[in-house]
Amino acid sequence: MFRDLNINNDRPVYLQIKDYIKELIIKGILQKDVKLPSTRELGEILNVSRNTIILAYEYLEDEGFIRIVKGRGAFVSDIKIKPQDNFNLSWDEKINDYARFAERLDIIKNEIKWEKGMISFKSISPDSSLFDMDEFKKAFLNRISMEGDKILNYGYAQGYKPLIEYLLKYMENKGVDVEGKEILITNGFTEGFDIVVSAITNKGDKIICENPTHNTAIKIMKLHELDIHGVEMDDDGMNINKLEEKLYKEEFKFVYIVPSYHNPTGIVTSPEKRIEIFNACRQRGVPLIEDGFNEELRYSGSHIAPIISLNGKGNGVIYLGSFSKILFPGMRIGWILADKDLISVLESIKRSRNIHTSFLDQAILYEYLKGGNFEKYLKRARKEYREKFEIAYKAAKELIPCRDIKGEGGLHIFVELRDINARDVLFECCKNGVIFTPGDIFYTDGKGKNTFRLGFSRVSKDEIIKGFKVIGDVVRKMEG
Amino acid sequence: MFRDLNINNDRPVYLQIKDYIKELIIKGILQKDVKLPSTRELGEILNVSRNTIILAYEYLEDEGFIRIVKGRGAFVSDIKIKPQDNFNLSWDEKINDYARFAERLDIIKNEIKWEKGMISFKSISPDSSLFDMDEFKKAFLNRISMEGDKILNYGYAQGYKPLIEYLLKYMENKGVDVEGKEILITNGFTEGFDIVVSAITNKGDKIICENPTHNTAIKIMKLHELDIHGVEMDDDGMNINKLEEKLYKEEFKFVYIVPSYHNPTGIVTSPEKRIEIFNACRQRGVPLIEDGFNEELRYSGSHIAPIISLNGKGNGVIYLGSFSKILFPGMRIGWILADKDLISVLESIKRSRNIHTSFLDQAILYEYLKGGNFEKYLKRARKEYREKFEIAYKAAKELIPCRDIKGEGGLHIFVELRDINARDVLFECCKNGVIFTPGDIFYTDGKGKNTFRLGFSRVSKDEIIKGFKVIGDVVRKMEG
Repeated sequence: MFRDLNINNDRPVYLQIKDYIKELIIKGILQKDVKLPSTRELGEILNVSRNTIILAYEYLEDEGFIRIVKGRGAFVSDIKIKPQDNFNLSWDEKINDYARFAERLDIIKNEIKWEKGMISFKSISPDSSLFDMDEFKKAFLNRISMEGDKILNYGYAQGYKPLIEYLLKYMENKGVDVEGKEILITNGFTEGFDIVVSAITNKGDKIICENPTHNTAIKIMKLHELDIHGVEMDDDGMNINKLEEKLYKEEFKFVYIVPSYHNPTGIVTSPEKRIEIFNACRQRGVPLIEDGFNEELRYSGSHIAPIISLNGKGNGVIYLGSFSKILFPGMRIGWILADKDLISVLESIKRSRNIHTSFLDQAILYEYLKGGNFEKYLKRARKEYREKFEIAYKAAKELIPCRDIKGEGGLHIFVELRDINARDVLFECCKNGVIFTPGDIFYTDGKGKNTFRLGFSRVSKDEIIKGFKVIGDVVRKMEG
Repeated sequence: MFRDLNINNDRPVYLQIKDYIKELIIKGILQKDVKLPSTRELGEILNVSRNTIILAYEYLEDEGFIRIVKGRGAFVSDIKIKPQDNFNLSWDEKINDYARFAERLDIIKNEIKWEKGMISFKSISPDSSLFDMDEFKKAFLNRISMEGDKILNYGYAQGYKPLIEYLLKYMENKGVDVEGKEILITNGFTEGFDIVVSAITNKGDKIICENPTHNTAIKIMKLHELDIHGVEMDDDGMNINKLEEKLYKEEFKFVYIVPSYHNPTGIVTSPEKRIEIFNACRQRGVPLIEDGFNEELRYSGSHIAPIISLNGKGNGVIYLGSFSKILFPGMRIGWILADKDLISVLESIKRSRNIHTSFLDQAILYEYLKGGNFEKYLKRARKEYREKFEIAYKAAKELIPCRDIKGEGGLHIFVELRDINARDVLFECCKNGVIFTPGDIFYTDGKGKNTFRLGFSRVSKDEIIKGFKVIGDVVRKMEG
């Protein structure tokens, strides 16, 4: 039976031998008290050195699978796995409504999937080829040499102190007065938003957001069974009259907005509109949750400060930041900047959910940021995405018959068709190897059936044109 | 004003200059349309090269803070941060009961804190000096060279495929039949347990666990408002009669157990008891949640298979695994092994909470494991912890007057005093520079006031003796 072992190059040979014998014992092929071949014998059978076998046996003994008796040899231990009658359940009946709802709202599972050769405009994640691997490696090696033992052991729920300090300074540089405020590091925006919603809402509470808005935010709010009120968008952001009207009529737990390169419309809320929204919330005492989504990607024009910077020492705005949308999303690092006492409560929730965000990742990111690499990366990324945006916007205007195209930069544009269902268009495009994200998933009220989002960050310039042509042809045909 | 800039070695100089000027603009010290000094002038003022200033201005323009007019110079842009009336809220009134409860259950916030010079037996986290940094670095560099662009971009909610495959094989090697089962990667045990509880329980549901048990599990179950029924422990695990009695009297949503080096008692549930517990759950159709906590740390005797290995192709056991308790806790990687369809639902919940666990960390861990480093590490760690355990157990027996000391290995022992309150002992010990974890926090019914846990993994052998002496003296004095 030992001859059946196929040794490969994936793992040290002695460990492959150890695992193989373990398997034979676990499966009951080698039973209790059976004597294993001598190390010399097995070495010959497997054509490896005797030392390799000695090492394998040592590990087997260490893991409790064999015992080695001096002068007599190696014997299989008493591994008590006596298979019992199988215990089977119908999990279908055990899974609760919340879990089923999470499954139903999971668009990744329910939308058309990318297949090889397709041009996909679904993604708005960054183009990894812009990442600077050398600087990333350096950041890792520096940090691990300095304090590898610390960052690989348990850390603190609030986050890695140097990163928190860096981000406080970073937010100050956006014009925020951080006095009386604190930062909690989260696993990206998603966790940050979920924690905030968990802390300040109860089932059935009314909240306001833009309509359409970020689908993940809608999903989280639905999972918390909130009563979502969408306010329609003008070209410069949320319609202020509708917002004020709503705020004055009913009680809301918070207003959630994405002021920069809004997902999905790409609209940048104007500085004037930011002030109006801020004051509307202030006057009604309704917390404002500001999603800092992609604001770093500003391509042109003057810097526009986040809404939280309007609030001086005030505590009514919660800012959710994330690099993970544009830089290293695989690491999942975001942050919440808010009132100190609130952050302290959110920290306890964070701890109850997953103790803390990876300290390794936080430490690498800190080292990377500190060295100025983020600025350098952004310079490259802005240039690249600006070019792509300009090509995409122009091409969409030319190639796709529609009522309106929105977008001012960022990583996507948003198309409003005349009176054609975007899912029908998607169905036809898919046959021709092009997919995108239907807009209805971003709406709070079932509208937007004639809209879709085109993410261009990971599509080459040529394929942008090629893909848009396909979409345009389908739309033209359907318009008849 | 430019002379006030203090240049340090932390960041590239041009970025420090950029940040400084940004700050002056943000604060309104440099106002709209103000002309900045020429690059030559500022270079002289700051005593840096003109090129450094050119670069700083380039970044300032790129970020939208200044505009550079050819032949005329650099001018401050219109940064519209018009401070508004402060928006202040009383967050105290906005924070809900759930969040307050999370805060109240947050032992880190409510227990005595370590201060410099103290001997702390609170921690049961691994001794970082046993980590193999060189192999860890290699694993990072290998993976990042192979697929850095992939693992730093968005991944999949279920986890990093090669790690999942590795863990399936790993569980097979513990005797588990993985057919019909799947793995979900989580941010450690804590997230895994929270997700499972979220998916299969509703407020008020009854569940069974050992009494005492892992405090984090109690916290999570309390936050889900479950009705927790503790079953007392015998020396070989849960009292089976009491378990069966409970199971036959009422409906329970699940039974949660920690069969190896049980937290806090250190008890290893015997193979026979494992079979009895499994069959009791099977007969009543109650899912069994098995916490694989520290089972890798077995010091001596035959390998004891996890309970899930008794179940063949059955699906009634959910296994929660985690390396993060013994290896690299800072990375927060655990897994759930369970029925395939159940995992698919849990995956959707995971996605709704934080998209996925860091792909960087998963990829490094995979590379590290694949190379056989975990086995090598365990060999070292087992040896070290066995020695410490033996010293600690013996020293506690000798030095601390008590009714019973439990523990069979792992990273901690558990002391039951005669009739003395452990918190009183802690209070006195703390004055003498020794702290530990009072046992009451592990009990489901307010008992255990005369118990405490002594974690020894991060305390030197000398300090174990020294610390136990202090505890023993305090106890002796209180016993009078």
